[in-house]
Amino acid sequence: MNSVTCDLTMSLDGYIAGPNQSMSEPLGEGGEDLHRWMFEEPEANAAAIEGILLAGAFIMGRNMYAGPGPGPWNEDWRGWWGDEPPYHAPVFVLTHHPRPPLKMKGGTTFNFVSDGIESALAQAREAAAGKDIAVAGGAKTVQQYLSAGLIDELRLHTAPLILGGGERLLDSVGNLRLEPLDVSGTSLVTHVRYRVVR
Amino acid sequence: MNSVTCDLTMSLDGYIAGPNQSMSEPLGEGGEDLHRWMFEEPEANAAAIEGILLAGAFIMGRNMYAGPGPGPWNEDWRGWWGDEPPYHAPVFVLTHHPRPPLKMKGGTTFNFVSDGIESALAQAREAAAGKDIAVAGGAKTVQQYLSAGLIDELRLHTAPLILGGGERLLDSVGNLRLEPLDVSGTSLVTHVRYRVVR
Repeated sequence: MNSVTCDLTMSLDGYIAGPNQSMSEPLGEGGEDLHRWMFEEPEANAAAIEGILLAGAFIMGRNMYAGPGPGPWNEDWRGWWGDEPPYHAPVFVLTHHPRPPLKMKGGTTFNFVSDGIESALAQAREAAAGKDIAVAGGAKTVQQYLSAGLIDELRLHTAPLILGGGERLLDSVGNLRLEPLDVSGTSLVTHVRYRVVR
Repeated sequence: MNSVTCDLTMSLDGYIAGPNQSMSEPLGEGGEDLHRWMFEEPEANAAAIEGILLAGAFIMGRNMYAGPGPGPWNEDWRGWWGDEPPYHAPVFVLTHHPRPPLKMKGGTTFNFVSDGIESALAQAREAAAGKDIAVAGGAKTVQQYLSAGLIDELRLHTAPLILGGGERLLDSVGNLRLEPLDVSGTSLVTHVRYRVVR
């Protein structure tokens, strides 16, 4: 059966976004630096980057789609990623406010799911047509899926910097046990692939 | 010149000891599990274990020597490690209460330093006679040395478990930048050696 994966980049002190997230700085202060490995070392990190986008369907939280706070949550908001988002696959957005699917260029369709994380996963699994399903973020969404035991493989990309505050990934996830499957890295990131042990 | 190193085992959520540390459970609830890699896989982790004990002198905080809380802080307390501690080298214990050095079997001598972290480092450097100096812990002591820019190499051994509370390593260390030098691991631990960038 297809796996449920989750790729996240976090700081050495455990944050996936810095302090004071805002519409103009959605990753918070210093948060952009987390992703230097993707932009400055695409070749050295090619396998990790490919792994992120290999899924047949994605799930994301409302904040990841529309930003923190009340945000631009209206019919006109089309995400952060321009006309052609990098997913090239169906994306299921968790929200309390249902709205019709939004078809973007390049194969990405945003689908809005208001009946919970298990329903979103079932829909994503169906849409993935045998490929993996990726839980894309943010922290709260990943925490919900981890706590519910619904993630098979957690791939942590640790950036060697300290954010000192912000949105922490591994809070409130219960007593997880994980098993490292492999490790690799560059001077800007350490990749560890974990199997979540049930 | 000899380097100042720091080896620490932390959980995936950043704790080097679990919640509710006490004299009977000095590593807190679940904290013993952090160190399974050392005891269950000594061969597979031989290089990392050797690295820890290669230093010519060690520095530790008062809590690491005598436990949390008021503890058994008296002339009779000889540490947690029995008659022959594993250090086999001079150990400098930071404390507000000076007392005479305590000579143990096997080459370990506990020296008590009450005039600050820089003095402890100068004394340890002298005693190390050209070998590295290791800051052994606990979290607060490491935080002080990291914040002061006095650590050259941080070696994090990350155990794939969630403690959910306890003593966090990388809080209050300021805006550190680190550079991963190499990564390795087993199913019980991921080793990353970081150079601290000044």
